[in-house]
Amino acid sequence: MSIITLTTDFGIKDEYAGIIKGVMLSVNPAAVIIDITHNIEPQDLIQAAYIIKHSFKYFPVGTVHVVIVDPEVGSKRAIIALETRGHIFLAPDNGVLTLLLNKGDIDSIIRVENLCYFLKPVSQTFQGRDIFAPIAGHLSMGVKIETLGPPAHKSDLKILDFKYPCISNNTELVGTIVYIDRFGNLITNIDANTLDKFCKTSEKKGLKIIIGRNKITGLSKSYESAMPQTPLAVIGSRGCLEIAVNCGSARCYFKAGNGDLVIVTKK
Amino acid sequence: MSIITLTTDFGIKDEYAGIIKGVMLSVNPAAVIIDITHNIEPQDLIQAAYIIKHSFKYFPVGTVHVVIVDPEVGSKRAIIALETRGHIFLAPDNGVLTLLLNKGDIDSIIRVENLCYFLKPVSQTFQGRDIFAPIAGHLSMGVKIETLGPPAHKSDLKILDFKYPCISNNTELVGTIVYIDRFGNLITNIDANTLDKFCKTSEKKGLKIIIGRNKITGLSKSYESAMPQTPLAVIGSRGCLEIAVNCGSARCYFKAGNGDLVIVTKK
Amino acid sequence: MSIITLTTDFGIKDEYAGIIKGVMLSVNPAAVIIDITHNIEPQDLIQAAYIIKHSFKYFPVGTVHVVIVDPEVGSKRAIIALETRGHIFLAPDNGVLTLLLNKGDIDSIIRVENLCYFLKPVSQTFQGRDIFAPIAGHLSMGVKIETLGPPAHKSDLKILDFKYPCISNNTELVGTIVYIDRFGNLITNIDANTLDKFCKTSEKKGLKIIIGRNKITGLSKSYESAMPQTPLAVIGSRGCLEIAVNCGSARCYFKAGNGDLVIVTKK
Repeated sequence: MSIITLTTDFGIKDEYAGIIKGVMLSVNPAAVIIDITHNIEPQDLIQAAYIIKHSFKYFPVGTVHVVIVDPEVGSKRAIIALETRGHIFLAPDNGVLTLLLNKGDIDSIIRVENLCYFLKPVSQTFQGRDIFAPIAGHLSMGVKIETLGPPAHKSDLKILDFKYPCISNNTELVGTIVYIDRFGNLITNIDANTLDKFCKTSEKKGLKIIIGRNKITGLSKSYESAMPQTPLAVIGSRGCLEIAVNCGSARCYFKAGNGDLVIVTKK
Repeated sequence: MSIITLTTDFGIKDEYAGIIKGVMLSVNPAAVIIDITHNIEPQDLIQAAYIIKHSFKYFPVGTVHVVIVDPEVGSKRAIIALETRGHIFLAPDNGVLTLLLNKGDIDSIIRVENLCYFLKPVSQTFQGRDIFAPIAGHLSMGVKIETLGPPAHKSDLKILDFKYPCISNNTELVGTIVYIDRFGNLITNIDANTLDKFCKTSEKKGLKIIIGRNKITGLSKSYESAMPQTPLAVIGSRGCLEIAVNCGSARCYFKAGNGDLVIVTKK
Repeated sequence: MSIITLTTDFGIKDEYAGIIKGVMLSVNPAAVIIDITHNIEPQDLIQAAYIIKHSFKYFPVGTVHVVIVDPEVGSKRAIIALETRGHIFLAPDNGVLTLLLNKGDIDSIIRVENLCYFLKPVSQTFQGRDIFAPIAGHLSMGVKIETLGPPAHKSDLKILDFKYPCISNNTELVGTIVYIDRFGNLITNIDANTLDKFCKTSEKKGLKIIIGRNKITGLSKSYESAMPQTPLAVIGSRGCLEIAVNCGSARCYFKAGNGDLVIVTKK
């Protein structure tokens, strides 16, 4: 099996995503290349970090995940290859893999420096094509990440600051909206575990979820358990608290944006 | 051959389409997964029904077509697998396959209930990932739809109401715009057969096609048989009457929208 | 290896791109189909010509490149197959391959007329499906282009007028913006060779690049060598002079559009 996934901010208007697939197939004609998304907002590392964290585990062990959101392309920022839980990741060392590092169990981290796998000459503006693509091609053929360069330590890597939810006074759990999907669902950084720590199962029915001046009572099991056009809170597919509107858009309903606070209280 | 097609309203900004491909490949690493579109308007069952009807037959016999437009995800709505003309379809039982049922010759309809093919746990918000994807993976490996659950009858299935063209007084054929494509072509529900019933071949040259206060005379063979920026009527690639503007957009030209009436008269 | 690339103006909302992949796989189930882009502006031959020119060489020799931007579909315009540098191209004879012809070394040009490879009946509105797709499928299986129809000569083909940069008085190099990418980078038609003819390497540091009333001094090596939100000029991934804004959009910064002049001077 030789699957490569792509998570980039290239968009799909230009030739960029197509070209890196061409380079990958030139190295490994048997590679199966799957787009996770090319529509990360330009240079939005936080968004890319969430998407790769929530996506990779649904691919077979052995998959090579390439994440190219790279505002510093052409600078001296390193490129890293990383192996964890049987998956291989290739990305600029700019923090985009932070949420994977948090999980622990990293098997190996390599600083990618072995020029023999690079396309020549290496441009300073499109290293997705000249470095990431050929290396991903080779990794998908079974090349070991250890051959790509010297080992690095987790503490050497650039780490992004993520907002994490916090519990104040044991009565309020304060999180933020970290992603808004196509349907207008507001996805928070409050994961199910944090919610479990905050309250007992028996208390969940009475939880209030506050967003702006609005209040939602209780957690729903699915979108359609609220009336059409009515807001609800649910543990969504990312395993996090999500605010939605059945058959509508919570983004429009609440005029909400990334970074907005969401407060959970027990009464 | 193990081809799976996808017709969804997931969009391509989020990780959803990528994740279901990961699940499919985890089940069947040899699956060839083709996007028909992920840009169905959110929860627009009618649009999805037309697209799958017009697309499936261009794929090889044996293809598994997955249609996920699922406003009721997490409710008790069933999921159905259906076999017709050598193709297999997997969709929520919400009417999105209605236009295939109309054609007759359904070989088999199954209510998908066999949990052994589901991802565990099954979420109530993303069954595309947890049910549709692994089942499609298994179907693409040759698993028979009969193993997925109990048989269902066509009359058990939810049916959508489509607008059909009608002939009034033998002088007017009244249809509606049911789809507007990227080029701004206005695609009606008047298919070539209905037009043949309405008038003789010799009469087609003199047909008037009325949209709003505008009138087009005769059917063209191709877009470019009208002058640039000039409207025309043509039997389009879906086999239906289509109103277009050569090198322009009929949507803009006529300020037209889905549901607008299109009237064909003989004089 | 049987790779087919697609460069079209079909967009990704409609079923069109999916359908042609279905037809290709019906002919050659082992075809690997890669989207370069489906988001060429409707009927923008110039944009498509640039994109295929800059993309094809990153794919393996033997790849079949299908370019469908075809405002004259259904007219008597020919369809051509062309072999150059080990790659095969299939496109309408409307000039969309002009930039490949300029390069010389064309091995073979064929007028596609052999009906036996066409889908029947051939529509006059979607020949991407009925002609291009099945032929590409056969080409990807090793069918020789000579079997598709009679040979044609380069001088028979329709040629598009491209704007080329020009040097005036040995002091000014005048080019135009020919493409604006997703990041808002302004890509000009001034390639590195033309720049080398215009000035010595030692002079490049002092070059002024003028766009509207703005002036940029010198060429940068990478985007991030300018301060964030600051404009710069760089030889971009297409090998052409590109105006960018580090971590920003040059399109917004300069309110620039396709066709705008860019002037390079030595002082």
